[in-house]
Amino acid sequence: MQTFKLKNRPKIIGSYSIAGPKEGKGPFGKYFDYIMKCDRFGEKTYEQAERKMLEIAVTGAIQNAGLMVSDINLMLAGDLLNQIISSSYTARAFNMPFLGLFGACSTMAESLAVGAVLINGGHYKNVVCATGSHFSTAERQFRFPLELGCQRVPTSQWTVTASGASVLSLEGEGPEIAMVTFGKVIDLGISDVNNMGAAMAPAAADTLAAHFKETKQNPEDYDLIVTGDLGKLGSEILIDMLEAKGFKLGKNYSDCGHSFFTRKQDAMCGGSGCGASASVLNGYIIKKMKAGVFKRVLFAPTGALMSPTASQQGESIPGISHAIVLEMGV
Amino acid sequence: MQTFKLKNRPKIIGSYSIAGPKEGKGPFGKYFDYIMKCDRFGEKTYEQAERKMLEIAVTGAIQNAGLMVSDINLMLAGDLLNQIISSSYTARAFNMPFLGLFGACSTMAESLAVGAVLINGGHYKNVVCATGSHFSTAERQFRFPLELGCQRVPTSQWTVTASGASVLSLEGEGPEIAMVTFGKVIDLGISDVNNMGAAMAPAAADTLAAHFKETKQNPEDYDLIVTGDLGKLGSEILIDMLEAKGFKLGKNYSDCGHSFFTRKQDAMCGGSGCGASASVLNGYIIKKMKAGVFKRVLFAPTGALMSPTASQQGESIPGISHAIVLEMGV
Repeated sequence: MQTFKLKNRPKIIGSYSIAGPKEGKGPFGKYFDYIMKCDRFGEKTYEQAERKMLEIAVTGAIQNAGLMVSDINLMLAGDLLNQIISSSYTARAFNMPFLGLFGACSTMAESLAVGAVLINGGHYKNVVCATGSHFSTAERQFRFPLELGCQRVPTSQWTVTASGASVLSLEGEGPEIAMVTFGKVIDLGISDVNNMGAAMAPAAADTLAAHFKETKQNPEDYDLIVTGDLGKLGSEILIDMLEAKGFKLGKNYSDCGHSFFTRKQDAMCGGSGCGASASVLNGYIIKKMKAGVFKRVLFAPTGALMSPTASQQGESIPGISHAIVLEMGV
Repeated sequence: MQTFKLKNRPKIIGSYSIAGPKEGKGPFGKYFDYIMKCDRFGEKTYEQAERKMLEIAVTGAIQNAGLMVSDINLMLAGDLLNQIISSSYTARAFNMPFLGLFGACSTMAESLAVGAVLINGGHYKNVVCATGSHFSTAERQFRFPLELGCQRVPTSQWTVTASGASVLSLEGEGPEIAMVTFGKVIDLGISDVNNMGAAMAPAAADTLAAHFKETKQNPEDYDLIVTGDLGKLGSEILIDMLEAKGFKLGKNYSDCGHSFFTRKQDAMCGGSGCGASASVLNGYIIKKMKAGVFKRVLFAPTGALMSPTASQQGESIPGISHAIVLEMGV
């Protein structure tokens, strides 16, 4: 069994999302709590801008929960940068216990899942879960320096500049975390660093199929099933793979990355990055849940465990997907 | 409160350690379960060798627990390589749910702590926690290519080539995990990548002081207090810092890195790396606990959250330390 239910359901009592200027012009723009005017965000480097975004998201979520930084017992975070520096330097700034995670773009679900387990067990009272990504830091770490001006291929995705954070607690109001499904590392041999959707879709299919089987539920039992950043191609592959496993995703299925930009925004297959699902969850989904639009949400972001070193040594790109079930007042 | 007690104490029912040839000649050599004849371990690259070590450690711990791979519900692991590739490719090989962690050299405690919380809550029955490091992969990622033959300074430490894994369960026999203290990210401004001990010692002091205060215990209440890889200089700094906080470490204090090599082995301030504390815990400490030599152990490995990117941008090196209490038959 990969799935377990939480007896004492932690609630998301505070949330915050922040996004870059390009991201702010997309369909989710009006739901983000803060839109940056400039990608550099007043900092000397893009890495420092990414960290500043994460700090603002964490602060914003704590304020949104009506708490003080000193009320938070633990921060759970990870990001795409080597040694998850955005997260660890953010944790340094807040002087709170820190649990560093690495799940690539699945981190928002991973941090919420582990945070929920700690709250459920009564180990901590309030924890903050966060992640984010930045287009310019990811491009130069994983692909090419921006200065090279490399052409983008049709299967490529645009790592979004965005962050999101959630505060979990048993006290307060907000969507509850009802279930967790930790995913397996799945690799069907994709080695193209410009085709993340195809690399990650099998992991999403594996985790979602395990979730449906183990909980004896069907896709139509959810108001919204949302993956993280499969993009256009990856989402289509997921729909096909799940259908082959006997589960038909309907109109209640969506992908944060696929919906992140308009066609005119020239992001090819869509958005990607930890920040995509983090900002859509904390910007759009939680607000819609609080407004009564969605009551049961299956949130399953996916991570491509892509390493330039492993790729150069001939390895393919494994994917992973963790899923959590969010319920509002049921 | 950073510290919490576990009601249902998970036991380490299986453990395994593997180390490289240089490491095998050190004081812990006779306690390791497997000593490699060659650092490359029959693989094409050092990264593949590191992964193979981790796979063997995980397999060995599962066998030592008397279980099959299919009995394990989750693997919790992390390592020093970018995108924790040793861990994620190992998880791919085992086809089991995977929770990726990043705590640098504190990972053995982080994985055991999170694994213990999952077992304590009844979410999973058996989990495996693992980490490892390799001298040659760490040197080229964090410092210089080996081919350059750079001179080592007196404060430098030798990243050990070693891995360790533990299986946690409520059923079976072995040392119990009684308490967990998650640490803060602490940074007193050290920016020398060849002085990891000084960068990490403040984090160890912070976590240990929090542990002693919150649990109202003193250093002498433990048979063994062991840090991960502070090395000679870092251990001395820790002793001084803790004394200034009112806690006097005595003869029951030791550091895995400091004790890892003999003076003749030319490792300057000692060993370091995730593999140091992982192999000493799973090779030496657990065996000594089972033999009745140690009954209460405070295991507090430390991680230097060092990033070449952040260092090049002028940042100092933050440290983190997570602590767990192991008890045998009390």
